[in-house]
Amino acid sequence: MSTFPAVVPPDPEAERAARARQRSLTKPPGSLGRLEDLSAWVAACQGACPPKQFSRARVVVFAGDHGVTAAGVSAFPSEVTAQMVANFDAGGAAINVLAELAGAGVRVVDMAVDTDRSDDAIGAHKIRRGSGNIAVEDALTAEQAADAVAAGRTIADEEVDAGADLLIAGEMGIGNTTPATTLIAALTGSEPVAVIGRGTGIDDAGWARKASAIRDALYRARGAVADPLALLRVCGGADLAAMAGFLAQAAVRRTPVLLDGVVVTAAALVAEQLAPGASAWWRAGHRSTEPAHTLALQQLELEPILDLKMCLGEGSGAAVALPVLRAAVATLASMATFTEAAVAGAPDPVS
Amino acid sequence: MSTFPAVVPPDPEAERAARARQRSLTKPPGSLGRLEDLSAWVAACQGACPPKQFSRARVVVFAGDHGVTAAGVSAFPSEVTAQMVANFDAGGAAINVLAELAGAGVRVVDMAVDTDRSDDAIGAHKIRRGSGNIAVEDALTAEQAADAVAAGRTIADEEVDAGADLLIAGEMGIGNTTPATTLIAALTGSEPVAVIGRGTGIDDAGWARKASAIRDALYRARGAVADPLALLRVCGGADLAAMAGFLAQAAVRRTPVLLDGVVVTAAALVAEQLAPGASAWWRAGHRSTEPAHTLALQQLELEPILDLKMCLGEGSGAAVALPVLRAAVATLASMATFTEAAVAGAPDPVS
Repeated sequence: MSTFPAVVPPDPEAERAARARQRSLTKPPGSLGRLEDLSAWVAACQGACPPKQFSRARVVVFAGDHGVTAAGVSAFPSEVTAQMVANFDAGGAAINVLAELAGAGVRVVDMAVDTDRSDDAIGAHKIRRGSGNIAVEDALTAEQAADAVAAGRTIADEEVDAGADLLIAGEMGIGNTTPATTLIAALTGSEPVAVIGRGTGIDDAGWARKASAIRDALYRARGAVADPLALLRVCGGADLAAMAGFLAQAAVRRTPVLLDGVVVTAAALVAEQLAPGASAWWRAGHRSTEPAHTLALQQLELEPILDLKMCLGEGSGAAVALPVLRAAVATLASMATFTEAAVAGAPDPVS
Repeated sequence: MSTFPAVVPPDPEAERAARARQRSLTKPPGSLGRLEDLSAWVAACQGACPPKQFSRARVVVFAGDHGVTAAGVSAFPSEVTAQMVANFDAGGAAINVLAELAGAGVRVVDMAVDTDRSDDAIGAHKIRRGSGNIAVEDALTAEQAADAVAAGRTIADEEVDAGADLLIAGEMGIGNTTPATTLIAALTGSEPVAVIGRGTGIDDAGWARKASAIRDALYRARGAVADPLALLRVCGGADLAAMAGFLAQAAVRRTPVLLDGVVVTAAALVAEQLAPGASAWWRAGHRSTEPAHTLALQQLELEPILDLKMCLGEGSGAAVALPVLRAAVATLASMATFTEAAVAGAPDPVS
């Protein structure tokens, strides 16, 4: 279940048709800037030009606790993870508000929250109570890592089978920027001090504890960098593994994805290893303030749509970017052409 | 009609209440980044916390031709201005598509298109057929400049009286980046070569002709820099003057504005002279690729919400930014507080 079929790239013919259609629309060539690139990408993902507006965009929030919180790496107590899962379920969190505004549905899945839960939809894919403290032990067993990746694949399949035409992965988990930053440092070969951020707002002493934990986890992970499942086992977590499976499977299922912040993008780096080429099906919703996020985006060669100094997670940055992606689709699909509107185009360049 | 009453700043008490409420919402403090600042600004503009979602956002597209097109400063023939006014009226332009997606209405006003039109709503405020060629003559008479500013004020009043709670100024006019760039160079004391862009896509020879026209216009404007009406007369145009009146009056009427690109922001620089303090009622929707735009934004101390390499005008960049502003309002207005959701907040910082 951890071996992915080859990823088929988005349709280059539809992309060419999109770029040709952009040149026929009543505006100067290229004047919609990145909206034109995004619209061509959506057309390529859908294999059709003009593309259709997203009718079923879905945010899946992957929740999990992390034993490394015992090392004092977060400003919040780990009980908050379960409390926020309830908040997502009740519709009171930022992602609920932002997704509703952007016309997307929200689903929360408990992969490894440190509570008992397996008897409802939220807990149906749960792997364990909390992932291990990566500073001193593996986050998961080998079996749990494989099961979590498989669960993420299943969740992606469920969403695509239910008609999702755009996916956003979000996350919630006190302490989760610590394994995420470890994964990014490992996969980009970066020095920990260059990539460690403030997470939800730790002070200087907390930052030092986080740096120490990440150094220890990186040392433990030194033999696992080339093996994505081993890396998830040693210094990831059930939530990160599930997100990696989800993002890889979205690409296998030819479904476009908006990435969110540092945690989701850490999982995306692993997903690109699990299913090479998957990143062609992703765009980066925003740039977070976490330094590791920018490194991960560079490695994936993704330029974020927004840069609003957000660092919340939950899929919130991607949800704010979704209307921009919708704007790209709408202009390509609905603007009049020069011919339709009887507007004169630019003459050929004169010297 | 060109003397504006004092601008009352947005309500600092509502802004303080917004920042306090942000700290009570179920997220780490500051984690929504610029959305938090934007939400506090909207609360201050509305004088209420939480703020209400915009129920009547309005885009007004100011259309006008410019005699300076005779100098070969644009890639498009000036007939396109009138053709695009018809396209706006028919709903086929980018701004129509983007405004509909963002939940905003669109109105187009013909201030100085080079056609006869005065017998309908679009032409009701028309000043003249085309503004003068600013390379060699004044754009307007003194009376026309005052009338155009007054027309912009009237248009703002009409929109606010009809219930507009957010305004966007847009523009359409072949050649209009030439007077806009001239105004920005004059009001920021910039060298023309540092600020002149490609407009809708001129080639190198066209760029040189545009630079020459702007140098000549700046020379003609050298005695008018301190007098906004004189500046609009010498090197502006009826559309730019009307936008300046519109933006100043929006502030007088305590109505928030999203600015668009280089042409609107040139008018905003003049509006800030006409009604000092008006800029507190504005936010910058996006950064266009025109170099003069960044200079004007710096002078107004406005940081754009988006940077998508757009350079279309019409209000299109602001329209794409509107959903981001809506997201800011929605989070502040609709998220659960820590108390409501029974979520534990961050403990006080520990050392």
